[in-house]
Amino acid sequence: MKESKLSFASDYMEGAHPEILRRLAETNTCKSAGYGLDMYSKSAREKIRAVCRAPEADVFFLTGGTQTNAVMIDALLRSYQGVIAAETGHISVHEAGAIEFGGHKVLTLPQYEGKLRAADIARCVDTWREDANRDHMVMPGMVYLSHPTECGTLYSLQELTEISSVCRDNQIPLYLDGARLAYALACPKNDVKLPDLAALCDAFYIGGTKCGALFGEALVIPRHNLVPQLFTIIKQHGALLAKGFVAGIQFETLFTDGLYFSIGQTAIDAADRIRAALQERGYRLAWDAPTNQIFVVLEKKQAAALSERIEMSFWENTDETHTIMRIATSWATRPEDVERLIACL
Amino acid sequence: MKESKLSFASDYMEGAHPEILRRLAETNTCKSAGYGLDMYSKSAREKIRAVCRAPEADVFFLTGGTQTNAVMIDALLRSYQGVIAAETGHISVHEAGAIEFGGHKVLTLPQYEGKLRAADIARCVDTWREDANRDHMVMPGMVYLSHPTECGTLYSLQELTEISSVCRDNQIPLYLDGARLAYALACPKNDVKLPDLAALCDAFYIGGTKCGALFGEALVIPRHNLVPQLFTIIKQHGALLAKGFVAGIQFETLFTDGLYFSIGQTAIDAADRIRAALQERGYRLAWDAPTNQIFVVLEKKQAAALSERIEMSFWENTDETHTIMRIATSWATRPEDVERLIACL
Amino acid sequence: MKESKLSFASDYMEGAHPEILRRLAETNTCKSAGYGLDMYSKSAREKIRAVCRAPEADVFFLTGGTQTNAVMIDALLRSYQGVIAAETGHISVHEAGAIEFGGHKVLTLPQYEGKLRAADIARCVDTWREDANRDHMVMPGMVYLSHPTECGTLYSLQELTEISSVCRDNQIPLYLDGARLAYALACPKNDVKLPDLAALCDAFYIGGTKCGALFGEALVIPRHNLVPQLFTIIKQHGALLAKGFVAGIQFETLFTDGLYFSIGQTAIDAADRIRAALQERGYRLAWDAPTNQIFVVLEKKQAAALSERIEMSFWENTDETHTIMRIATSWATRPEDVERLIACL
Amino acid sequence: MKESKLSFASDYMEGAHPEILRRLAETNTCKSAGYGLDMYSKSAREKIRAVCRAPEADVFFLTGGTQTNAVMIDALLRSYQGVIAAETGHISVHEAGAIEFGGHKVLTLPQYEGKLRAADIARCVDTWREDANRDHMVMPGMVYLSHPTECGTLYSLQELTEISSVCRDNQIPLYLDGARLAYALACPKNDVKLPDLAALCDAFYIGGTKCGALFGEALVIPRHNLVPQLFTIIKQHGALLAKGFVAGIQFETLFTDGLYFSIGQTAIDAADRIRAALQERGYRLAWDAPTNQIFVVLEKKQAAALSERIEMSFWENTDETHTIMRIATSWATRPEDVERLIACL
Repeated sequence: MKESKLSFASDYMEGAHPEILRRLAETNTCKSAGYGLDMYSKSAREKIRAVCRAPEADVFFLTGGTQTNAVMIDALLRSYQGVIAAETGHISVHEAGAIEFGGHKVLTLPQYEGKLRAADIARCVDTWREDANRDHMVMPGMVYLSHPTECGTLYSLQELTEISSVCRDNQIPLYLDGARLAYALACPKNDVKLPDLAALCDAFYIGGTKCGALFGEALVIPRHNLVPQLFTIIKQHGALLAKGFVAGIQFETLFTDGLYFSIGQTAIDAADRIRAALQERGYRLAWDAPTNQIFVVLEKKQAAALSERIEMSFWENTDETHTIMRIATSWATRPEDVERLIACL
Repeated sequence: MKESKLSFASDYMEGAHPEILRRLAETNTCKSAGYGLDMYSKSAREKIRAVCRAPEADVFFLTGGTQTNAVMIDALLRSYQGVIAAETGHISVHEAGAIEFGGHKVLTLPQYEGKLRAADIARCVDTWREDANRDHMVMPGMVYLSHPTECGTLYSLQELTEISSVCRDNQIPLYLDGARLAYALACPKNDVKLPDLAALCDAFYIGGTKCGALFGEALVIPRHNLVPQLFTIIKQHGALLAKGFVAGIQFETLFTDGLYFSIGQTAIDAADRIRAALQERGYRLAWDAPTNQIFVVLEKKQAAALSERIEMSFWENTDETHTIMRIATSWATRPEDVERLIACL
Repeated sequence: MKESKLSFASDYMEGAHPEILRRLAETNTCKSAGYGLDMYSKSAREKIRAVCRAPEADVFFLTGGTQTNAVMIDALLRSYQGVIAAETGHISVHEAGAIEFGGHKVLTLPQYEGKLRAADIARCVDTWREDANRDHMVMPGMVYLSHPTECGTLYSLQELTEISSVCRDNQIPLYLDGARLAYALACPKNDVKLPDLAALCDAFYIGGTKCGALFGEALVIPRHNLVPQLFTIIKQHGALLAKGFVAGIQFETLFTDGLYFSIGQTAIDAADRIRAALQERGYRLAWDAPTNQIFVVLEKKQAAALSERIEMSFWENTDETHTIMRIATSWATRPEDVERLIACL
Repeated sequence: MKESKLSFASDYMEGAHPEILRRLAETNTCKSAGYGLDMYSKSAREKIRAVCRAPEADVFFLTGGTQTNAVMIDALLRSYQGVIAAETGHISVHEAGAIEFGGHKVLTLPQYEGKLRAADIARCVDTWREDANRDHMVMPGMVYLSHPTECGTLYSLQELTEISSVCRDNQIPLYLDGARLAYALACPKNDVKLPDLAALCDAFYIGGTKCGALFGEALVIPRHNLVPQLFTIIKQHGALLAKGFVAGIQFETLFTDGLYFSIGQTAIDAADRIRAALQERGYRLAWDAPTNQIFVVLEKKQAAALSERIEMSFWENTDETHTIMRIATSWATRPEDVERLIACL
């Protein structure tokens, strides 16, 4: 049975943190208002505002990452604007054209281990501005980042501050995709905290689906009413949950007693343990990814052999004989599975 | 506290049927493939195919009704086509322009207690076809129905067969929104069964959100591959769940041991009891709605007084002094709350 | 040969006013900048600003009416807003879903001989605002009128002022489609002048295609920069002419020596002559349309007989035995053809 | 006065070929049916079918290139598909996001002097097909080429045949943008004839705007009814001309007595003369562009000095001190202006 194999294929393979299930059961027969107007969602919003030190923030709970990206990009851009993203960005590659479906071009820039550079963003905007044909071209209208990136890497606070600064100098909003944010926050190398995101970004989302919830992403817009009628935009995108309280309860739980911060720790500890074991055994890591995703370069034969025993994700072929495989840990990774994996190496 | 008031405001105020919560807890630590490729979703699809007697059907699990409608309408129409719907249809009024966001006009027809008539559909298509300017007009490209309708009414099998027949004669697909389908299936007056839907519709969805699930709708397309790449279309709409198994587990549970059929019974029994009590006491029902929604005509003063004690939904004002209020029961309605409500009348 | 038949089928059957052809020939070998940055377009803009008494107005030249409507509606609305129009409005019926293609719902209101009423608009906006579910509904975001209307009727200055007032009270823009504006301006019953349009509307277009040009509509936005980057929006819609000067030359000519005002006179004189003849002979006019379109009620047999000799437009059947036919005159209608038509009656 | 300067800035600076103006004047008072149903358009279609040896072809006349591209790409793709284009392709860079406005991603591939390579296209499609995540990605759905390219270069018949072959093997349509097609057809190095385009492409357009018409592009679809309801799609895009006959007359003229073939000759002769003079004088051409566009590498000072006397187009900076300027000839370029330009070198 596929599900019983030792699997490190992704971080969205289990249900929810037990505390979330407990709260869902506990509140199951209470009657709540629909569409996020319930008291759990209200409480979750307050907790998120507090932890982000963004007392005026608008907070919405959506179902998934592609949806949240599409809604927010559509909400922030005018029709003739595009969104700047790394060429490896999730919106550039793996969202099936959801951004274009909303009418917008993704303006791709080079990536450095999954990250954008402030200087490249500045050059992109300047190039557009100085082009005699700029009125025939898509105007750069916002910047999309992810933290951690698709490559498991992290922006430093310094890097993020520089990018934010370029955005503000050019009056274009900065939006950050935090699908795996818990794994950044738990990482010792990370120096970007939630209040930093609230201070530096115009919008960002705190990932739930990959970080301990059954589903759900918390979209945070530090400046109240930056986007008027966002509720309606969410509805128009088919992204408004009738039972919004199911998401509200989950985020209320994640932000009670610091669960969102501790939940990532398990994943990082497991990933660090695996990274150390890989390096001890002479495996080569594709790049320095310090979060819950490990990218290991394997000979194809070796990859095939290991894949018999451990489910990993294929990332890409680097040459005729080598391939990069991704090992992902999560909040639910069990120490015994980590040891079994290491024993296979 | 708002949530503690006696509430019959809607049918999406509680969590999930306890059996669903039990199964979510039971499977919580199992590792499942993402995006609906897991074994629970597979099993749920098989169960739905069996109960619909549609062995070749494509089945997808989405999050909510507006989303499912937008995805399927977008998938079935070409850019220059519109969707025929009742002027009271959910897509016509209460989806914030989600259909137009996808580029399509909603072609509204008169409604009769929420229902479309086959003859009106035929006339609409014929009128377009015979219009000398038809190539300058939106072509009717599909029909949207809901069962039960927004008004709580039901199509008879005869009516649905006639509509299906008009659609097939004109080679336009018929799509049915079953957000509250459990409440139709449990209603003694209903003679439209799941195999009838599979035989008469080109696509329909079996509602979960309002019928006992935490969230989720099961989109059923009886003819395999009617829409190629529907998975990608769903992704592009931001409607693909990473943890598809969370929806799969819920629908597998709803279609085990006939739960989806029994779950509606509680709501119908409660609604019948309330309808009888209302009529005994001389209240006037706005129209004959035999499912879980009751539409009662009240004097405005009376409505205000009752609303102090019972949360209902405002539907519409019929004249200066009267208003229609909606009382909704659900799978979770408790007999003691029904008796308390009746005592208030 | 179809083209040689006595034809009153429409007002876009001939080429351009001879003075326009003369100017196109005269300037043919001059080199002009592209995309409307040429001196003819500049001069045409100045002339239009002067005649509209709107010295700050932005003026763009587009190719056709549907295109201009789609561009401007898309430019003025946010994604979640719709445009209010008469149910007979061109955008509601005869633009093949161009407005929905841009993502917007057309919110139709009743028409009175093709016209909207201020009170209906106010009620529509108020109804939305007072609806508890308004955030799930399409927000009325602008108003679309045509003058003359599709029915050949005219708004009085009083009516237009009232509508403008409702729009301003509700902070929603008013846009006016002037496809046949020359025929309003030349009509004795018309009391709406170009400066009135500039004062009362947020945007409007002065029709060229049906009023003496080979093609072209002049979009006028009295308040400068009301829509930033409109040039790019026009380009994105595929509506930017590379040889913008070809449109510029035409509008410069139309607004030199009052040509646009005299050009409509021929059509109105012809239409008045035909209307008088019809009434003398006992024909019934469908409604009081004082511009270049005449709507006459005919028995179907009579309509068929007349159609043998005169090409008219079918408008609609009023009952089993009667039909409304449209007779359209234009700037190019010849007196001898009017007399031949009258002789046929 | 800007217009009097010696200008080689572009090929859309003059009006129309005198024969076109003559025919417009000659037919000006004839009454024609609207929307392309007139006899001139019919005749033009027949002439184009004949010269393309495509007797069943659908032919439509649109206003401009961006519009034609947007319409045809939208017509050929399903929502989840994208269009493959060179990274320098007009749709990739200079159409203000018109393709994304229609909901589609432009999938860019490397360019070689403006051209795509068959092997790159094949690899792009194969890569998508073999990607485990392909259902989360935009499917390559068609190929966009231009001939001549934006860089003034030409596909050989061999190259075009290879690309067509890749497209047919993969069942994705091939579309060719012929904005400057007359300048390819008149070029001695060109071996791609109109019947080749009809045989190898699924759709292409014959450019009028830059090739002697006031405006207009002739969209040719060799296989009849490849796109059902294309008329309506054109209307929905705001691209349907009410006075379609104005375009029809122009294309009828361009395809009478071989005008479209001779019209390009003037431009090519002038460009060849300038290229020879440049090379004699030691100027460096940026690449080998044999059509009506000449790309010359200049020192920035030299470029500035020359620009005082000759209007050219800025193309791009190649390094700190050099720039590429474009010199464009057209059907209207006068020999004396060529000599004046050469004298300035």
